[in-house]
Amino acid sequence: MTKATATPASDEAPPPTFPTLQLSVNSLSQPLLAQLLERLTEWNLASYIGPQGIRIVDAGVAVPGSVAAGIAITGICMGGLGEARLRPGNDADGWPMLVEVHSAQPVLACLASQYAGWSLAAAREEAGGKKFFALGSGPARALACKEALFDELGYRDQAQAGCLVLEVDRAPPDVVVQKILRDCGLRPEQLTVILTPTSSQAGTTQVVGRVLEVALHKAHVLGFPLASIVAGSGCAPLPAPAPDGIEAMGRTNDAILYGGRVHLTVDADDAAARELAQNLPSANSEDYGRPFAAVFKAYDYDFYQIDPALFAPAEVWVSSLASGHTWHAGKLDMGVLREQWLREA
Amino acid sequence: MTKATATPASDEAPPPTFPTLQLSVNSLSQPLLAQLLERLTEWNLASYIGPQGIRIVDAGVAVPGSVAAGIAITGICMGGLGEARLRPGNDADGWPMLVEVHSAQPVLACLASQYAGWSLAAAREEAGGKKFFALGSGPARALACKEALFDELGYRDQAQAGCLVLEVDRAPPDVVVQKILRDCGLRPEQLTVILTPTSSQAGTTQVVGRVLEVALHKAHVLGFPLASIVAGSGCAPLPAPAPDGIEAMGRTNDAILYGGRVHLTVDADDAAARELAQNLPSANSEDYGRPFAAVFKAYDYDFYQIDPALFAPAEVWVSSLASGHTWHAGKLDMGVLREQWLREA
Amino acid sequence: MTKATATPASDEAPPPTFPTLQLSVNSLSQPLLAQLLERLTEWNLASYIGPQGIRIVDAGVAVPGSVAAGIAITGICMGGLGEARLRPGNDADGWPMLVEVHSAQPVLACLASQYAGWSLAAAREEAGGKKFFALGSGPARALACKEALFDELGYRDQAQAGCLVLEVDRAPPDVVVQKILRDCGLRPEQLTVILTPTSSQAGTTQVVGRVLEVALHKAHVLGFPLASIVAGSGCAPLPAPAPDGIEAMGRTNDAILYGGRVHLTVDADDAAARELAQNLPSANSEDYGRPFAAVFKAYDYDFYQIDPALFAPAEVWVSSLASGHTWHAGKLDMGVLREQWLREA
Repeated sequence: MTKATATPASDEAPPPTFPTLQLSVNSLSQPLLAQLLERLTEWNLASYIGPQGIRIVDAGVAVPGSVAAGIAITGICMGGLGEARLRPGNDADGWPMLVEVHSAQPVLACLASQYAGWSLAAAREEAGGKKFFALGSGPARALACKEALFDELGYRDQAQAGCLVLEVDRAPPDVVVQKILRDCGLRPEQLTVILTPTSSQAGTTQVVGRVLEVALHKAHVLGFPLASIVAGSGCAPLPAPAPDGIEAMGRTNDAILYGGRVHLTVDADDAAARELAQNLPSANSEDYGRPFAAVFKAYDYDFYQIDPALFAPAEVWVSSLASGHTWHAGKLDMGVLREQWLREA
Repeated sequence: MTKATATPASDEAPPPTFPTLQLSVNSLSQPLLAQLLERLTEWNLASYIGPQGIRIVDAGVAVPGSVAAGIAITGICMGGLGEARLRPGNDADGWPMLVEVHSAQPVLACLASQYAGWSLAAAREEAGGKKFFALGSGPARALACKEALFDELGYRDQAQAGCLVLEVDRAPPDVVVQKILRDCGLRPEQLTVILTPTSSQAGTTQVVGRVLEVALHKAHVLGFPLASIVAGSGCAPLPAPAPDGIEAMGRTNDAILYGGRVHLTVDADDAAARELAQNLPSANSEDYGRPFAAVFKAYDYDFYQIDPALFAPAEVWVSSLASGHTWHAGKLDMGVLREQWLREA
Repeated sequence: MTKATATPASDEAPPPTFPTLQLSVNSLSQPLLAQLLERLTEWNLASYIGPQGIRIVDAGVAVPGSVAAGIAITGICMGGLGEARLRPGNDADGWPMLVEVHSAQPVLACLASQYAGWSLAAAREEAGGKKFFALGSGPARALACKEALFDELGYRDQAQAGCLVLEVDRAPPDVVVQKILRDCGLRPEQLTVILTPTSSQAGTTQVVGRVLEVALHKAHVLGFPLASIVAGSGCAPLPAPAPDGIEAMGRTNDAILYGGRVHLTVDADDAAARELAQNLPSANSEDYGRPFAAVFKAYDYDFYQIDPALFAPAEVWVSSLASGHTWHAGKLDMGVLREQWLREA
């Protein structure tokens, strides 16, 4: 990206070409995957040869996994273009443990790689008697490019190895693995699939680690030109995983909706930065205010009834490189989180 | 550890066998020791061939050492299964510098390795005219397994290299070194002993870095099943070392007793997690409330008169994987620390 | 440094010799420079062969650069003897992003390397029609030793590679490059010059990353014996770069003067530590209270009219190893910063 191309593009303009498009999210994340494989025992993980001969890393199905593994998986999900870490909170944080993420390439890290956007399904009869559904996330998405989003990003990875993360409690069936391999153009030995059930420690951690991605996704929904987002950081409180799947999903969403903070730097003018800041926080949604699980239930568990504007961090800062101003909007509501997650002993 | 074995074992049950017991705290800490040896000059350390031909690293006897070295030594003490780092504090922390530790294997990191539990003594005539006493900590303990604790852990390391940390102001005498080598089954060139006087910068730092270990030890004293503790983090404020040995020990204890915060994740039911949280904080002790050095003095410097329940962090969170609840108890008393450590200029 | 030599030297005493003087700030920073060169694309940097055949890294002139690059450049500036990192702030910090630095060798890291003290100028006719002026910072200063400060430090690096950081918006002209090579005793292929305009993201970041250096420099101005400063840490809020050069410089100064916190550990007696703490904060200056850009303007942009005592962190802690007391003085004034940098959307 050069300064010359960094002004927000109009809706009609073709995606600008960036040198950054030469970055390979799959190649850059392979060293992080290698570290994960070196620490299987320490992090309570298992690795085995799965359907079609691909490598499966179990991060919470038959083994307990760990928060540490979830942090490492967040880094893999961000395609090697982000940093994730744990931080103990103090009284001003209102929660003992937080997940932090940073990226100098937030669009590639979060949207081309981390976003759970690749729909992978198999009917009951194809999937061993129980239908399979997952939204694939992580760098292998950028090899397959099956989502319309990739046309907008103008990005396609061509690495000879790939890694996909699935929030499921079993390995994908053969028919799904075959589809992944075909779409990614990989041989089985070149693909790793990491399983992270939402109700596992690693699963909860890596979803909370999407706090920045959620902001990027909403900025995209709001029509903000992605090429103008040049840096991003986020943090959110990390709850214990809820044993129940719906509750676990609720908690990870709530961590971001009520406890997530994101800072974006945009190469855009002051008015655009201000407007983005105003519209970004979750409180803009009419569904804001109650725990996510309650909202979900109120809509009879129909995900698509939920106001998409709800999926956003609670508090944001957007810095305009054009003006130098940092626009602030939203605020945390730790009360919603603490009421659900915390008990006085 | 699999989910199946993770329910708290009864008192009578034999220790379960974990794949994690294959982790070698000595092997995993060797790269950290190598880094320490590479940075001797930067961190104001000295390394020399000591009694019997072992390697001694002086972190504060004839050289000043450093806080940075103390952080690195904390990582070594945790057997390569923990992370330690410095963090500047803000107004909510109430102190300018804190030590943070994390572990995905807190039982091995803290109890099998970091805990100062190996009693090493030599009478005056054996020890060059001045009697020697130290409580050895660090991974070499797990080679010797001289403490009853190792039977409960069911863990024994068999690495061909070992490292022991001693809070003393001189190298151990030959008779003690011979005992260490014999008990660990090491040749002299395979053993490193790190010297960290409590009143040195590295010494103070590495003791404050025991904030999580202190919580693990108290959980053990309370009879909580160790196999159920699956993750832990802690932080505590780092004081300047006191020049006086008793005061230095007092400060490092106070940092944890009045300023330490620990978060544990337990694979146990809600009631067990709640009970652990209730009983864990230092405020449960009748000796709580005064600086440790004053308590120690009041008992005429007889360590064994002090209520063992005092040795605990000030504030704790215990998350139950069974319920998803996080139980909170205790609170910081930074006033006790600031009154002792701080002066307005 | 041994304990024996660590008492504050008198003004007349020759500089003591330290083993730490064997540390090479240029050699120790080469691996960090290699990492920077590996991440040129990710961090929006460019590298090219510049005047006389030296390597130029452009961190914000023709390319946008990044905050992440600024953090890495801070580490290079500190000669490999410091750590720099980003941290999201919470409500107690009053700003969403902070820069932290630590050093176990603050005098070498900050004064022998990071301080922008090497005056490099070329007249208009020598410099392609536009006069050139820069204050060189970073480890190559310690190869050239052209500043009186190096006599006091008694330090000279003799590495066969060097790196210099210039806060300018163009590559130095041939005449300046020739001078640098000559004074450093380097061949062109041994020298890297990093360009970081103050109004760029990397530029703003690496100046805020000087929070500890500013404290060291003021301690020196106050006549405090440098050999007694054994450890240091600092943090300061990171603003968005201001597009205007004067404003950008104002912001980076304000980040430190009104938002910077520094902790020093000194091997000095209690009275000396107290006096240092009292005199160190920026509030000791009569120019304290207004944004730096306003002060600068009030002096008709004559830098040398500004009270030198203003260049200091807002809040300090100085720990005396002799007494164990930590002396505190000064306080943050985040209001001055937020009023300039922040807007509610």
